[in-house]
Amino acid sequence: MLNKVVIFGVGLIGGSFARALKKAGAVREIVGVGRSAASMARALELGIIDAVGVTGEPSLAAALHGADLVLLAAPVAQTEAILAAIAPHLPAGAVVTDAGSTKSDVVAAARRALGGKVAQFVPGHPIAGRETNGPDAAIDHLYIGKKVVLTALAENSAADIERVAAAWRACGAIIHRLTPQEHDKVFAAVSHLPHLLAYALVDDIARKPHADLLFQYAASGFRDFTRIAGSSPEMWRDISLANQPALLTELDAYMAQLMLLRARLAAGDGAALERVYSNAQRARHQWITAIEAAEAPPSPDKAE
Amino acid sequence: MLNKVVIFGVGLIGGSFARALKKAGAVREIVGVGRSAASMARALELGIIDAVGVTGEPSLAAALHGADLVLLAAPVAQTEAILAAIAPHLPAGAVVTDAGSTKSDVVAAARRALGGKVAQFVPGHPIAGRETNGPDAAIDHLYIGKKVVLTALAENSAADIERVAAAWRACGAIIHRLTPQEHDKVFAAVSHLPHLLAYALVDDIARKPHADLLFQYAASGFRDFTRIAGSSPEMWRDISLANQPALLTELDAYMAQLMLLRARLAAGDGAALERVYSNAQRARHQWITAIEAAEAPPSPDKAE
Repeated sequence: MLNKVVIFGVGLIGGSFARALKKAGAVREIVGVGRSAASMARALELGIIDAVGVTGEPSLAAALHGADLVLLAAPVAQTEAILAAIAPHLPAGAVVTDAGSTKSDVVAAARRALGGKVAQFVPGHPIAGRETNGPDAAIDHLYIGKKVVLTALAENSAADIERVAAAWRACGAIIHRLTPQEHDKVFAAVSHLPHLLAYALVDDIARKPHADLLFQYAASGFRDFTRIAGSSPEMWRDISLANQPALLTELDAYMAQLMLLRARLAAGDGAALERVYSNAQRARHQWITAIEAAEAPPSPDKAE
Repeated sequence: MLNKVVIFGVGLIGGSFARALKKAGAVREIVGVGRSAASMARALELGIIDAVGVTGEPSLAAALHGADLVLLAAPVAQTEAILAAIAPHLPAGAVVTDAGSTKSDVVAAARRALGGKVAQFVPGHPIAGRETNGPDAAIDHLYIGKKVVLTALAENSAADIERVAAAWRACGAIIHRLTPQEHDKVFAAVSHLPHLLAYALVDDIARKPHADLLFQYAASGFRDFTRIAGSSPEMWRDISLANQPALLTELDAYMAQLMLLRARLAAGDGAALERVYSNAQRARHQWITAIEAAEAPPSPDKAE
């Protein structure tokens, strides 16, 4: 049982973490901290949090007093500033984690902001999300059956890592472990690159002189392919820049693949095209089959 | 009211056309022709067609006798062979149309196969599809509110074009007109290129040494982005080759766009990235809003 959890940013991610911990009876008190007084008031009204902390001193010291777990779920651009603000007031027994989509940059920011207290920071990334946001979007079952990747630091104690892992498990999540570098390489390939590609395609089409004609005939395949281009441009600008080295590597590999396919298409090499298409279809089918099995709730009583 | 409709290939596309015409009371008799005796028997059993034609002579002559509309809905690779087979038996009053995803190549095949009778061929492309196939997949409402693009030839009479258009309208579809070249350019951009890009991404990931690790963390965004890579490799090989010139043009434009984005990412130019992402998000949002309005059923009594 956690005594006091402090959550920076009580929207979909932070608010759902709070709701899930409460539903599991895994926490005594949750304090929310955020820049929007209206959001904090709403989170309090909805019962997501028990108290509102304020960002300035000495209020932040009071909010953190007695905390055993701190989650950063505000926009990632604020991560370093929040860590710097809490560093002087962080109790020795508290563990800090985050929910950012990139990890190498967060680790670098944490080292700068926390200095000698960086051992208390266990970086994390819950692989869950929806297109909604704000306290009203928070639900108690967002993380059931979902992965949370922890990218622990060499300085972290096993007990601190376990405290973060146990909190996420109480929310129904499944814990995975990667290094920050592995994490960023993996997500550059399966998430960040597809976002860039989808944005690029829609922008490319939208800039053509006959864009209206083109959009008129775009159908369900185009809709699915470009769904992620409906995501927040600011958030994905930040993620692209934060994971720039790994994203460039994946983009270069993909452009090389496109050049190869272009040569095959130009040569009219149908057999070569079909090999690529078939391999992709087969791999995707295997993947879908595997995730449909793996993403089932871990046990029936934890399901919604 | 059509007297006799002959459909080559009574799967999702041909069978749904048959069911919709029957539901609308727009046809007296439908004859199905196909290479699979089992599929034809099933289509007959399901009441999709009233009789089965056989492909050899003189049966084909009998099947076409008295026909006023012929739809080719077999795999596009068979188009030229079917047209060549029916050419000697095509009644002067019959109009032939097709359902192929590319049109310039179909027009060229029709000119070769039909010769002087090419005026009786009105090329078409219904923009509808599902992931199922065969006679059991056929439904009477597949085309309600969907677009059918007719790419009429200079030789077509206005009456023949109208006969094809009226049949599709009876199925609930909305008729659009493009030239074969316009059609192929449009679909290269909004359909054929996205398919190639999705296949390329999944194949690229599947060939990496750490593919298993990557697929393990792929989530819903990846699932949507790559959904079209689950399509038939043979069909998309054929479409890629059939529309090779337009597809190469679109692929080149897209690769140029990626090179530009790569330069911006490498330079850390967040403002430029955000402009592309924002433009894409805005264009996609406008498009979704427009299609949600346009794809509503044309009138309530035609809805399912």
